[in-house]
Amino acid sequence: MRNGLKIATIGGGSSYTPELIEGFIKRHHELPVSEIWLVDVEEGKEKLDIVGNLAKRMVEKAGVPIAVHLTLDRREALRDADFVTTQFRVGGLAARMKDEAIPLKYDVIGQETNGPGGLFKALRTIPVILDICKEMEELCPQAWLINFTNPAGIVTEAVLRYSPVKKVIGLCNGPIGITMGIADQLGVEPERVRIDFAGLNHMSYGLKTTLDGKDISERVIAMLAGWERDGITAKNIADVGWVPEFVEALGVIPCGYHRYYYQTSTMLAKIKEETERSGTRAEVVKRLEDELFELYQDPDLNVKPKQLERRGGAYYSEAAVQLIHSIHTDKRDIQVVNTRNNGAIASIPDDSAVEVSCIITKEGPRPLTMGDLPVPVRGLVQQIKSFERVTIDAAVTGDYRTALLAMTINPLVHSDTVAKLILDEMLEAHRAHLPQFFGVS
Amino acid sequence: MRNGLKIATIGGGSSYTPELIEGFIKRHHELPVSEIWLVDVEEGKEKLDIVGNLAKRMVEKAGVPIAVHLTLDRREALRDADFVTTQFRVGGLAARMKDEAIPLKYDVIGQETNGPGGLFKALRTIPVILDICKEMEELCPQAWLINFTNPAGIVTEAVLRYSPVKKVIGLCNGPIGITMGIADQLGVEPERVRIDFAGLNHMSYGLKTTLDGKDISERVIAMLAGWERDGITAKNIADVGWVPEFVEALGVIPCGYHRYYYQTSTMLAKIKEETERSGTRAEVVKRLEDELFELYQDPDLNVKPKQLERRGGAYYSEAAVQLIHSIHTDKRDIQVVNTRNNGAIASIPDDSAVEVSCIITKEGPRPLTMGDLPVPVRGLVQQIKSFERVTIDAAVTGDYRTALLAMTINPLVHSDTVAKLILDEMLEAHRAHLPQFFGVS
Amino acid sequence: MRNGLKIATIGGGSSYTPELIEGFIKRHHELPVSEIWLVDVEEGKEKLDIVGNLAKRMVEKAGVPIAVHLTLDRREALRDADFVTTQFRVGGLAARMKDEAIPLKYDVIGQETNGPGGLFKALRTIPVILDICKEMEELCPQAWLINFTNPAGIVTEAVLRYSPVKKVIGLCNGPIGITMGIADQLGVEPERVRIDFAGLNHMSYGLKTTLDGKDISERVIAMLAGWERDGITAKNIADVGWVPEFVEALGVIPCGYHRYYYQTSTMLAKIKEETERSGTRAEVVKRLEDELFELYQDPDLNVKPKQLERRGGAYYSEAAVQLIHSIHTDKRDIQVVNTRNNGAIASIPDDSAVEVSCIITKEGPRPLTMGDLPVPVRGLVQQIKSFERVTIDAAVTGDYRTALLAMTINPLVHSDTVAKLILDEMLEAHRAHLPQFFGVS
Amino acid sequence: MRNGLKIATIGGGSSYTPELIEGFIKRHHELPVSEIWLVDVEEGKEKLDIVGNLAKRMVEKAGVPIAVHLTLDRREALRDADFVTTQFRVGGLAARMKDEAIPLKYDVIGQETNGPGGLFKALRTIPVILDICKEMEELCPQAWLINFTNPAGIVTEAVLRYSPVKKVIGLCNGPIGITMGIADQLGVEPERVRIDFAGLNHMSYGLKTTLDGKDISERVIAMLAGWERDGITAKNIADVGWVPEFVEALGVIPCGYHRYYYQTSTMLAKIKEETERSGTRAEVVKRLEDELFELYQDPDLNVKPKQLERRGGAYYSEAAVQLIHSIHTDKRDIQVVNTRNNGAIASIPDDSAVEVSCIITKEGPRPLTMGDLPVPVRGLVQQIKSFERVTIDAAVTGDYRTALLAMTINPLVHSDTVAKLILDEMLEAHRAHLPQFFGVS
Repeated sequence: MRNGLKIATIGGGSSYTPELIEGFIKRHHELPVSEIWLVDVEEGKEKLDIVGNLAKRMVEKAGVPIAVHLTLDRREALRDADFVTTQFRVGGLAARMKDEAIPLKYDVIGQETNGPGGLFKALRTIPVILDICKEMEELCPQAWLINFTNPAGIVTEAVLRYSPVKKVIGLCNGPIGITMGIADQLGVEPERVRIDFAGLNHMSYGLKTTLDGKDISERVIAMLAGWERDGITAKNIADVGWVPEFVEALGVIPCGYHRYYYQTSTMLAKIKEETERSGTRAEVVKRLEDELFELYQDPDLNVKPKQLERRGGAYYSEAAVQLIHSIHTDKRDIQVVNTRNNGAIASIPDDSAVEVSCIITKEGPRPLTMGDLPVPVRGLVQQIKSFERVTIDAAVTGDYRTALLAMTINPLVHSDTVAKLILDEMLEAHRAHLPQFFGVS
Repeated sequence: MRNGLKIATIGGGSSYTPELIEGFIKRHHELPVSEIWLVDVEEGKEKLDIVGNLAKRMVEKAGVPIAVHLTLDRREALRDADFVTTQFRVGGLAARMKDEAIPLKYDVIGQETNGPGGLFKALRTIPVILDICKEMEELCPQAWLINFTNPAGIVTEAVLRYSPVKKVIGLCNGPIGITMGIADQLGVEPERVRIDFAGLNHMSYGLKTTLDGKDISERVIAMLAGWERDGITAKNIADVGWVPEFVEALGVIPCGYHRYYYQTSTMLAKIKEETERSGTRAEVVKRLEDELFELYQDPDLNVKPKQLERRGGAYYSEAAVQLIHSIHTDKRDIQVVNTRNNGAIASIPDDSAVEVSCIITKEGPRPLTMGDLPVPVRGLVQQIKSFERVTIDAAVTGDYRTALLAMTINPLVHSDTVAKLILDEMLEAHRAHLPQFFGVS
Repeated sequence: MRNGLKIATIGGGSSYTPELIEGFIKRHHELPVSEIWLVDVEEGKEKLDIVGNLAKRMVEKAGVPIAVHLTLDRREALRDADFVTTQFRVGGLAARMKDEAIPLKYDVIGQETNGPGGLFKALRTIPVILDICKEMEELCPQAWLINFTNPAGIVTEAVLRYSPVKKVIGLCNGPIGITMGIADQLGVEPERVRIDFAGLNHMSYGLKTTLDGKDISERVIAMLAGWERDGITAKNIADVGWVPEFVEALGVIPCGYHRYYYQTSTMLAKIKEETERSGTRAEVVKRLEDELFELYQDPDLNVKPKQLERRGGAYYSEAAVQLIHSIHTDKRDIQVVNTRNNGAIASIPDDSAVEVSCIITKEGPRPLTMGDLPVPVRGLVQQIKSFERVTIDAAVTGDYRTALLAMTINPLVHSDTVAKLILDEMLEAHRAHLPQFFGVS
Repeated sequence: MRNGLKIATIGGGSSYTPELIEGFIKRHHELPVSEIWLVDVEEGKEKLDIVGNLAKRMVEKAGVPIAVHLTLDRREALRDADFVTTQFRVGGLAARMKDEAIPLKYDVIGQETNGPGGLFKALRTIPVILDICKEMEELCPQAWLINFTNPAGIVTEAVLRYSPVKKVIGLCNGPIGITMGIADQLGVEPERVRIDFAGLNHMSYGLKTTLDGKDISERVIAMLAGWERDGITAKNIADVGWVPEFVEALGVIPCGYHRYYYQTSTMLAKIKEETERSGTRAEVVKRLEDELFELYQDPDLNVKPKQLERRGGAYYSEAAVQLIHSIHTDKRDIQVVNTRNNGAIASIPDDSAVEVSCIITKEGPRPLTMGDLPVPVRGLVQQIKSFERVTIDAAVTGDYRTALLAMTINPLVHSDTVAKLILDEMLEAHRAHLPQFFGVS
């Protein structure tokens, strides 16, 4: 028997991996990880080698007894794993580029998680994650699946509804980021601030904020309303400020992604302008990644480079390692994750994934009861949930009409005819990664 | 004691009134109306006289013992009424013109029922209907309020939640029109076709269609998908056809108003073009009305003129008189009305108004249980319901921020900044009819 | 193709059959039945012959073109049937005798529908009805299953949850009987009275009563409260009167079977006394049946004999034939049946059977939305529903512990130890009819 | 400003008070209580003095800076309190004696919390607690009300629904006792065991048990099933063992009070026998209390005497002080309390009190989402909830019929006629403490 935990990381060649490695190193005294298996596919072998060797140097430098393995053999990595983390990207950044660029040709925001881009990312990702789940059932049935691959909420719900794996958690660094940002603005330590989050991934709201347990929601809302730039929006989203009276009447904290829905025309203009100037966000990220991999290759580098933070994954390792730690130790602290609703948020189906404040126990996350969402936000959340469920059905069945339905009911797409144009062009563009629509080549 | 029913019609000077009169005349043998009181406000006196005198001539010609009264004294009309019908329009067509024109300046569809226009129509109408309800409570507590004033669903919910009157029904000619249209396309008598409707006013879906009790939903959906122009859309909505695969995947019958949400950009283009060519829809209607009143003045006219049908109110009298008849006789037939949800549609609050197939009894409408709406339509319905509830709160409180919230969460409005611009301009334009925001002048 | 309907009646040798035949004869002009197949098992052949021949004489006398077939071949009877009615009794009255007598030895009321007796009747019946459903799926997939076999609600739910047949309706003469009884007390024609029923089979409440569509609930409740004997209780239940203030506070009409729960000790004393005097109810019924079959044998008898009414099945043919007629003609009238809840009664699972006022269409019953049950009755209904669901699970699995659980949570059984004693004795007594517990002999 | 917390304890003359005092002393280093105000009514002055002086001696002995005040002036005690704890007993043990003895005359278990006795305890208590709430609203609107007075769940719900105080928590030592008992049987430290509790006060079930975060529910159920005496039942309830197969099929941990419902006849026999032998439980308690007050008078006694533990209030101070501590420090640990449901347990109204595992924050308890209760227990919980809600309505209105309804639907009462006899006798017996029924004397 191993005397430590085995972690398998699918998509191990990601530029984010040093974040994760650093997290396990820092917390090694309380979270006894003994093996980390970084897995990737043939096409990602080069990146896997680069980032994997950096990981090895980091571990060696830190002097912690963690064995880092690099492999293309997913089954070997999964066998007897305690935690499987997924951060793979089917089709890589090239696919994301299309997710963003094609809709934009039709004046529609691509939005790689809850928009048309997210639809296609889900169509590419879900067949792969369901395969992984089948292997987990066989090779590590006791393991937890911690999914970071976006759209994290949709992927989590697909696993819950269409796989044998029930121990799955979708994770996002958003809620931690908002909490950190607000603490920063208040000038207090983050652990004194607690926010009740409820909604869906990239669509969750901060319902109530407490400071040292005292309700300061109004103060925070007023603060948000007063900002020109809110300072809590993730770096990858244009921060354009809210109309103060709107946020005041909304009464809850929106997340950065809400801008795509409450400020659609403004965001569309921004994105078009930025794309004009520097290419799609995917292209910007591509350049950042190329620079990172350049750095990672330096045989003298043995810590996570500062530049990684500009990549947008702040708190990523924090979120993942905190979660694994709390599960492993039955810590019962409050974290915000994507999990089965089971009644936590009224009006959302019990079997749907929601993003909600939970206590984290060894049995997994237990959502705090949130009752019904406030009236003003209930509709949008339901609309995205409809989109999510139809998207999952399209991903599992490979049915063209279901995919068109998902595209048309997405709130960013303003016409069935445009939906069809975008859908057809994207299907063609992603053909290689959509076996359920086109058959395996 | 009267030996017949007393009907009070608020907004009696409407061009639709001959429809209603004709309905009562035709059904007089089974629905013993003895008095119809047409009420209007001072500004509408001239139109009331014209249309009221036509009504008198129609009744005389038909030889039925109905006394038609014209009055500006609402209290006199309401006293001991059995049914109160409301078809008034605060601010008249001039106000509707602004409801449509102002949003259009910002590339937003005004949509006089569920869009920004509907928000303002609700803000103008709700204080008046609540006043009427207070008087009804005093003068005719047993009466039924049959509301035709748009936005009919929002107005009905406002009455249910904020007035003592519980015997209220919101009515729309839409569902009858769709049923008639489909029967026509099938080449069968309308009474052989039954459609389960569920949703909100101007946002209800035909969930299932039967012909002689046999489920023909798939056939009807296929028919709809195949049409270039569907033939069931009300005359006042541009009929642009649906993308066939979208309707097939949707699996239920959308109503004409759904075009504003599933075909937003297409409809916006159409409306801009039409407005360019012939002014707003309000202006078109204004011209139609002027022509109608011209006709109505003819002292030889003593029947409903054919031209009224072009006005868009087809089946209006049918809907109203059928409903009153079924209530009065406890007929227990199925009609589609706006009533308290009470669980008929899952996930919508019990106290909200929904538009749903009901059996009509002497105690009022009893909704058939619909369970939950199909996943693909659930989101949009919830979003409009959020908009409706916030709109009602804004109308009752006169709170600026709540009105801005309603405007921003409306799915036709794509940005909080645009929402504010439209709101501010419309508030100013409608100032005279918004005492709750500006005080009574 | 047949030019009339084919009815298959499982348990055709029942003494009730003449009721049913009379119903089809009376309504033949509007319900064109051309074939009635009376099916029974080998042990029931003699009774089948007697009652079947009477049926033939009745049809001949009436001069209607209905062919009556007697058979032991269930498959032949089911083939291409339009309606299958079930009124069989596994184990016959001898089994019912045990259902009543054994619990009584432990001072527990047997109650053949919702009590310990009902548990065992369900355990015997469910495997048989599920077999019938399998055959229906093969031989008459379009047919409706109209189930009269008690416990009708439990059997209906078992079919809904564990068979491929979705076109199933459970029927009971109780609600008609209550409506008739109240009309009689009011001295008005029954069709002027309408009662909203909601709850479970033998556990439904009359929530609201209207006369000519006017709410007279309070008057009816006061009437009930004032009676020493209520006159609406079925003949097979001791009518002991209610404590007036209790019924007034309850505010809804209880059914006769509620006496077992709200008057347990009183009823227990009554039943013990009656059993002492004349044997169990099953034995009383046995004597009545013996007399009936004596009569039925008379070759000169060609109408339903008056004596059948004393049997307790009043309105039985009324209920069955009305229901079949309304389905066949898409009549859309209101009837009270057992059907899938689907949200009609809040807090009861969607997939459970409930007894509720429905409109009857060609597609089957559509429940009127009832919202939540009144607080005072909600608990008992839920408790019986828990019992029903566990009973069904026990019947399907043949699991001893599940059966013990059902017995213990039944509100008539006051201790787990007594539950076990009763269960063990009844299992042994019914061994021949419980293949799922003891294997097929 | 005070530099410590002010606690007001209503019913301060209770024999339990030394428990509470000991708790505050032990935890003083982390819970800085500076004032404890023990309040009682005129009739309780002697006991207040005795126990209050003991409290003073205990505090002095311990050397902690807590000022103990004794008063009959409730307003003075409440002014600016941080926490108000209630442990008063309207009518004292003499009233409880009647709660137990009168039903027993009719062969009905009195059951002082969820039975007929609980009904009357609620009728006596609710007017008083609502008065206290009014005073709290005025004198200490920020304070938390921690209610121990039984029936704790009913009283909590009465406060939630009928008072301005929303910061109320009902507390019971039962769940801690069960957890401790199971830990003891397992031979492990209690903090390693966590049980999900859900249901109502004295009617909650242990849905799942974990040891070090690992699910050991089956093992615990098997253990319970195997015990002759379960060892986890509170000392005041006869421990008669469960039928093993019943507990196994139930699948969740029942609490001691469930014996009254699942073992009614057995418990009734036990209680009658015990009452025969040593008087009602109230009389037994009375003797225990007399002995305790004898001890308390000893001026040399300055610690909580061992004998108090025999009183049945084990873990009482533990529960109270833990709860206050977690609120004060925003500790976010899991405790089981009675609080507003808000969706935590499906099918129970949002505004009802439930007993459920919560995390305790400075804003109060936040229930973990439990989904729906298992089918077998759902019914009984709903039935008790119906009883509780009707009881509260009777207590607030003083309506005789509503009280009769509550009595009749209680599962321990088996007939409406017996219900009336018990009700009438108890109303008369408690007349002095039921101003809402008899007017203020």
